[in-house]
Amino acid sequence: MKTSIATVSISGELPEKLEAIAKAGFDGVEIFENDFLAFDGSPADVGKMVRDHGLEITLFQPFRDFEGMPPSHRSRTFDRAERKFDVMQELGTDLVLVCSNVSPVSLGGIDRAAADFHELGERAARRGLKVGYEALAWGRHINDHRDAWEIVRRADHPNIGLILDSFHTLSRKIDINSIRSIPKDKIFIVQLADAPLIDMDLLYWSRHFRNMPGEGDLPVTAFTTAIAETGYDGYFSLEIFNDQFRGGSSRAIADDGYRSLIYLGDQVRRSPNASGLTVLDMPDRATVKGVGFVEFSSDEKDAADLAAILRTLGFRKTAKHKSKKVSLYSQGDIRLLVNTDEKGFANASFAVHGTSAYAMALVVDDAGQAFERAVALGAEPFRQQVAAGEVEIPAIRGVGGGLVYLIDDNSNLGRFSEIDFLPASEEGEPEMAPAHLEHVDHIAQTVAYEEMLTWLLFYTSIFETQKTPMVDIIDPAGVVRSQVVENASGTLRITLNGAENRRTLAGHFIAEKFGSGVQHLAFHTDDIFATAAALRKNGFKPLAISPNYYGDVEARFGLDAELSERLKEENILYDRDEHGEYFQLYSMTYSEGFFFEIVERRGYRGYGAPNAIFRIAALKRALRPEGMPRV
Amino acid sequence: MKTSIATVSISGELPEKLEAIAKAGFDGVEIFENDFLAFDGSPADVGKMVRDHGLEITLFQPFRDFEGMPPSHRSRTFDRAERKFDVMQELGTDLVLVCSNVSPVSLGGIDRAAADFHELGERAARRGLKVGYEALAWGRHINDHRDAWEIVRRADHPNIGLILDSFHTLSRKIDINSIRSIPKDKIFIVQLADAPLIDMDLLYWSRHFRNMPGEGDLPVTAFTTAIAETGYDGYFSLEIFNDQFRGGSSRAIADDGYRSLIYLGDQVRRSPNASGLTVLDMPDRATVKGVGFVEFSSDEKDAADLAAILRTLGFRKTAKHKSKKVSLYSQGDIRLLVNTDEKGFANASFAVHGTSAYAMALVVDDAGQAFERAVALGAEPFRQQVAAGEVEIPAIRGVGGGLVYLIDDNSNLGRFSEIDFLPASEEGEPEMAPAHLEHVDHIAQTVAYEEMLTWLLFYTSIFETQKTPMVDIIDPAGVVRSQVVENASGTLRITLNGAENRRTLAGHFIAEKFGSGVQHLAFHTDDIFATAAALRKNGFKPLAISPNYYGDVEARFGLDAELSERLKEENILYDRDEHGEYFQLYSMTYSEGFFFEIVERRGYRGYGAPNAIFRIAALKRALRPEGMPRV
Repeated sequence: MKTSIATVSISGELPEKLEAIAKAGFDGVEIFENDFLAFDGSPADVGKMVRDHGLEITLFQPFRDFEGMPPSHRSRTFDRAERKFDVMQELGTDLVLVCSNVSPVSLGGIDRAAADFHELGERAARRGLKVGYEALAWGRHINDHRDAWEIVRRADHPNIGLILDSFHTLSRKIDINSIRSIPKDKIFIVQLADAPLIDMDLLYWSRHFRNMPGEGDLPVTAFTTAIAETGYDGYFSLEIFNDQFRGGSSRAIADDGYRSLIYLGDQVRRSPNASGLTVLDMPDRATVKGVGFVEFSSDEKDAADLAAILRTLGFRKTAKHKSKKVSLYSQGDIRLLVNTDEKGFANASFAVHGTSAYAMALVVDDAGQAFERAVALGAEPFRQQVAAGEVEIPAIRGVGGGLVYLIDDNSNLGRFSEIDFLPASEEGEPEMAPAHLEHVDHIAQTVAYEEMLTWLLFYTSIFETQKTPMVDIIDPAGVVRSQVVENASGTLRITLNGAENRRTLAGHFIAEKFGSGVQHLAFHTDDIFATAAALRKNGFKPLAISPNYYGDVEARFGLDAELSERLKEENILYDRDEHGEYFQLYSMTYSEGFFFEIVERRGYRGYGAPNAIFRIAALKRALRPEGMPRV
Repeated sequence: MKTSIATVSISGELPEKLEAIAKAGFDGVEIFENDFLAFDGSPADVGKMVRDHGLEITLFQPFRDFEGMPPSHRSRTFDRAERKFDVMQELGTDLVLVCSNVSPVSLGGIDRAAADFHELGERAARRGLKVGYEALAWGRHINDHRDAWEIVRRADHPNIGLILDSFHTLSRKIDINSIRSIPKDKIFIVQLADAPLIDMDLLYWSRHFRNMPGEGDLPVTAFTTAIAETGYDGYFSLEIFNDQFRGGSSRAIADDGYRSLIYLGDQVRRSPNASGLTVLDMPDRATVKGVGFVEFSSDEKDAADLAAILRTLGFRKTAKHKSKKVSLYSQGDIRLLVNTDEKGFANASFAVHGTSAYAMALVVDDAGQAFERAVALGAEPFRQQVAAGEVEIPAIRGVGGGLVYLIDDNSNLGRFSEIDFLPASEEGEPEMAPAHLEHVDHIAQTVAYEEMLTWLLFYTSIFETQKTPMVDIIDPAGVVRSQVVENASGTLRITLNGAENRRTLAGHFIAEKFGSGVQHLAFHTDDIFATAAALRKNGFKPLAISPNYYGDVEARFGLDAELSERLKEENILYDRDEHGEYFQLYSMTYSEGFFFEIVERRGYRGYGAPNAIFRIAALKRALRPEGMPRV
């Protein structure tokens, strides 16, 4: 699969764009004309700069308002094209994009347009150039690739071909099957973009909301598969207009783009009829069977506080590491490691971020294969130092520079525990009531808003998961965007919360922690009321929810007064969807805004989004020292 | 005009919201239910808090999915209503909003809905409460206020009335005249919101894009006038859902809201048939006849540099202030003051912002009246210290805390100059070629993005001006939003550029200047080439534009090669619209990113937006020290 990206997709001046694109691994680049016009080097300089980066110019674009011009404008339009041909020859590229005419003076007519393209093909041929025609979704007369293809066919010229763009086709819901009847040699290049599904004016949507394949909701994989099935083996090129990307890091956006194409190619490769596409061979997405452990980095003092909270939550210290200062706290199928070693990555993480849940282990079928896939998709591998005879677990860098360990039955926690850990218990540990916590329900990571798409793509491309639609969470200080990555069996559930300003609870966490990371862990119980009773006995301090909330919950869901009273007594939040009921109990915050949640799902599939506004208000009250003004 | 605002319109927790709303001057507040539920005080506490602020609770909202429920759901729906009535009585408010049903189980039928409302009216009456019905633009069966009104009419109950909301009516382009046949006593409250005109899903548009009346593009004034003409004299209440407002300063957003209502009332008052509306009497919007002067704050050293640049631009020092260190530089109808006094506001501004164009004087018909209107609309008056016998000019605080002086024929620059200024000239000033600059074409202010609406409302409400649609300006480091305030005669033109991040040229300016302010001044010439020649002779250094730009301009506009060559030689940018041609010549940047522009308009009405990307790229190149990496 030959990969390309348009310069308009990322931020920076032309030289930085090219550098980021080359470093990300792309084979080629589309030169967006304004990037060239704004740059003060000659076309030849630009061409050399591109080639010095080992890149090819895949396309020069856009050339607008060409076909179907009335006689009064036609000759000047061809003159305009000749000037662009001059530039292309100096740049050293042979393909230009003509997008369908939007000019109010333009005339319709397939044959008129075909004749224009035939003549343009003649002129291009004289210079050894080619012209690709693309139907803009908002073109005045041509806004459907099927009509553009009819024009190209009637133009009947070897130097005239079609350009397909996933956004223009999919935004208009044009039948993807129509692509399968186009000869591969008449597709001159393919442009790709995804977008979130929001019903709005197509031009506005395209200019502001496009994102990388896999980051949005359009069926880009099906679109690309249809193209691959024609036997097309040319460039797949990202053309993304996105306000956030324009203001983001050119390097990070280019890396995301490259990952999105590799991921897309891998999905398309799995279609039996798309065998013409040469793509990187890699293991399939890893099925996650559960969260093996979550590891906190800490120091002795903080670890003692954390241990005290864990005890009230019913955890017991069950093992300690043979060679490192790492303790294992267990309950049900939940394992929490607390690492206070003065050496190594955990300590380095502690030095920057303070006590935090900096690592998690995901249990997969084959850790080696999952690791191979992750690295093929550009994840950064992590090697830890292990003592002789100890188990080395494959790991990659995740959100906020934290770690994602990959474990399986051959390196599973039982064996890993036997080899590296010795049974242990807390000295003088008080007897605590069992809290019935069974497994990790979900892990909530707070990230800077501009990183959300990066981490959605990271999780969904490596692991067999899906993302849910974005939800707005209302914090008194602003909107927080929340999106979930989860698998069908519910054994992996990660909520990503994107903070836009530092006065929100999420933004405050990022500011205080000096980075993105796990802000809360949710554990599942099969009996929320039994858990609540045990926790009360253990001295656990729940987050106090406003009494006003319970009157509304009772009325909204028609709960009986007794249940609603019990919820209120235990500070349990309640939600219901078409699948069942949901109960949520929160801890107070610990350290710089970290907290625990306990949930019971009775068939419910969501995450209690309608309760978030009340939970955040309660957390903000709890964080506020008495007498301090509200922020 | 009784003013109100919904708590959902601004950021913060409930107490801060109420404080900001009261301080802004509102008479009442709508309690948005979630704000109440998230708060940990009782309904009675909330009611007391509202009244302690001198506010009235105008509405409790929303009550959803009420009318037309099937028999299986109907009784629970009424139970739900009774629970909300309990809360309302404790809060101390008598009006609740029922918005039209969106539930998929709800049934249509005007009479069914009317019967439901009749029963609800009976229940409300028993408690002395009232119910207002509002048609949501996306209601399942009812999405038009005319249908909601038919239901209210058939409900035929004194405790049931209609709630009108400008967004729901105007977003669906419902005929405003239909309001004129509704009896005023059946309109229980009026909600107001504006929005920018973007074609998108109504719910998404409403939830994210609403803004204050006058900040958007909807005909809110006509809507409000139609209501006032019914004789309605109840509350006009802002209900604004806006992501930016949710993350903004509660105080600033509340102030903007109050200003928007006062301005709206003033416009409506001018309709001959809306005399029932009692609003603040104030002078009409001031007609601006020109820019009297622009004043820079500086120190001796910077002022010498500035004076040198002004000389190359053909300005001459023509006067100096009698008692302060202020020099006047003149050319054509342009007057620039340079204030290096060590006392006073200019000096204080210099201490914070460095050399900057911190003040401007606008020439109006009657400065006293303009000042009176500005202050009535919440502008902050500014009093300067003047020596005995000197002229005191009315002034208000503008963008970035700078000043807007208001001058007229009774306090005009001639007289003000005679009284306070003495003719003067620069000692040993070299002879410079005349540059033909005639008047200020426009003043470009750069502001933080979240302040843009504030300043648009400031200018358009005080001065007789209009705003143009927002334009995206592409900076290599992100998108800058640009919007223009201008009057029909072109004697006042202000461009506002909203910077979203500090790496854009605009954002860098704000960061370096410690605030918003004038980033460039554009002067008009009647002969750009004569000006360019004179400037060259005077040693002026124009901003160097990429040669690539000129090839495109020549092709795009079909310019003859000679003109395009002249443009290139002089680094003049070119644009054309249906009214005529535009020529732009820029200076290098001075101080922390300030620059001058010279334009010639040959009928052209815009601001060269298509050229901005090339100008910004050139400015960024010019700002970059040789050998420094590009940012």
